This record gives sequence, structure tokens and C-alpha cells, in this order.
Amino acid sequence: MKVQVLVRLKEGVLDVQGKAVEHGLAGLGYEDIGSVRVGRLVEFDVDCGSFAEAKDRASKACEALLANTIIEDFEIREPAA
Amino acid sequence: MKVQVLVRLKEGVLDVQGKAVEHGLAGLGYEDIGSVRVGRLVEFDVDCGSFAEAKDRASKACEALLANTIIEDFEIREPAA
Repeated sequence: MKVQVLVRLKEGVLDVQGKAVEHGLAGLGYEDIGSVRVGRLVEFDVDCGSFAEAKDRASKACEALLANTIIEDFEIREPAA
Repeated sequence: MKVQVLVRLKEGVLDVQGKAVEHGLAGLGYEDIGSVRVGRLVEFDVDCGSFAEAKDRASKACEALLANTIIEDFEIREPAA
């Protein structure tokens, strides 16, 4: 089962990378783009029978390695296609 | 308008970070997780009237700064909520 994990900094945690991207965009004429937040996208296959099971494994993997749950939140999704 | 951009390495481009994550997960007992690919998630607001317009601006911003289109693909989405 394919799984998509979105890892984001928690609200309130300063996103330095996001600020840098925002600044860079403004310098290129994209002043209409704001509130930039940069996170990670992790996609993988889980060898199991159902998406529910895959989601459970992915959640455990996030807690163990993929996300730093002190400062980051994660969201597990079934990819569109 | 809120916009979500997923940036992924193109198929066929070696994902060293993905391999490292896969190896790390295997070492923690997650041998059932494979084909790990790591990308970036960039979320921002575009000051405009419609999602179509925001998508167009986001696409231009990706070409200009957010993605390295030689080795990366990007996908622009409207966030779920």
C-alpha cells in the first residue's frame, strides 16, 4: 500500500527555511506570496493488506524516525492515484 | 488563497535521503516499509482572487525558485481544509 506522509513544523515554531524562501521569492517579484512554510514529503510502500494497516505502520514509523514530534506534526494520506 | 506544493525528485533520480530513511527504518524493525522517497512540502498564501490564479503564480514560483526542474517535479494542490 502506498502511503504519503506530510511533515510540518508545529504552528508557532519559527520556520527559518520558510522565511528564507519568502524573502527569496519577494526578491524575484513574488511579493504576493506570503506565510511560507516548508516541510517534508515522505512517500513509501508498506507491505500489508489494507490502507488502515499501512496508516498504522506509517504512524509508528513517524513517531520512531520520520518526524520530530516535539516540534513537528505529521499527516498520513493515501496518495490520489 | 492557500496553496500546497509537493516537490519530488524525478523518477530515476537516485534519492539518497530516501535510501537513508529506508535503511534507518529497517534497522528499527520496519522492514515492511520500502521504496522510500523524500521530497519537500511548501505551503503558502497567494494574495489573489481565485485558486486558478494562485496556481498559476505558484507554478511560476516553482520554476523560479521552489523546485530544481532539472531533477525535480512539482505538484500544486489546493489544501483540503
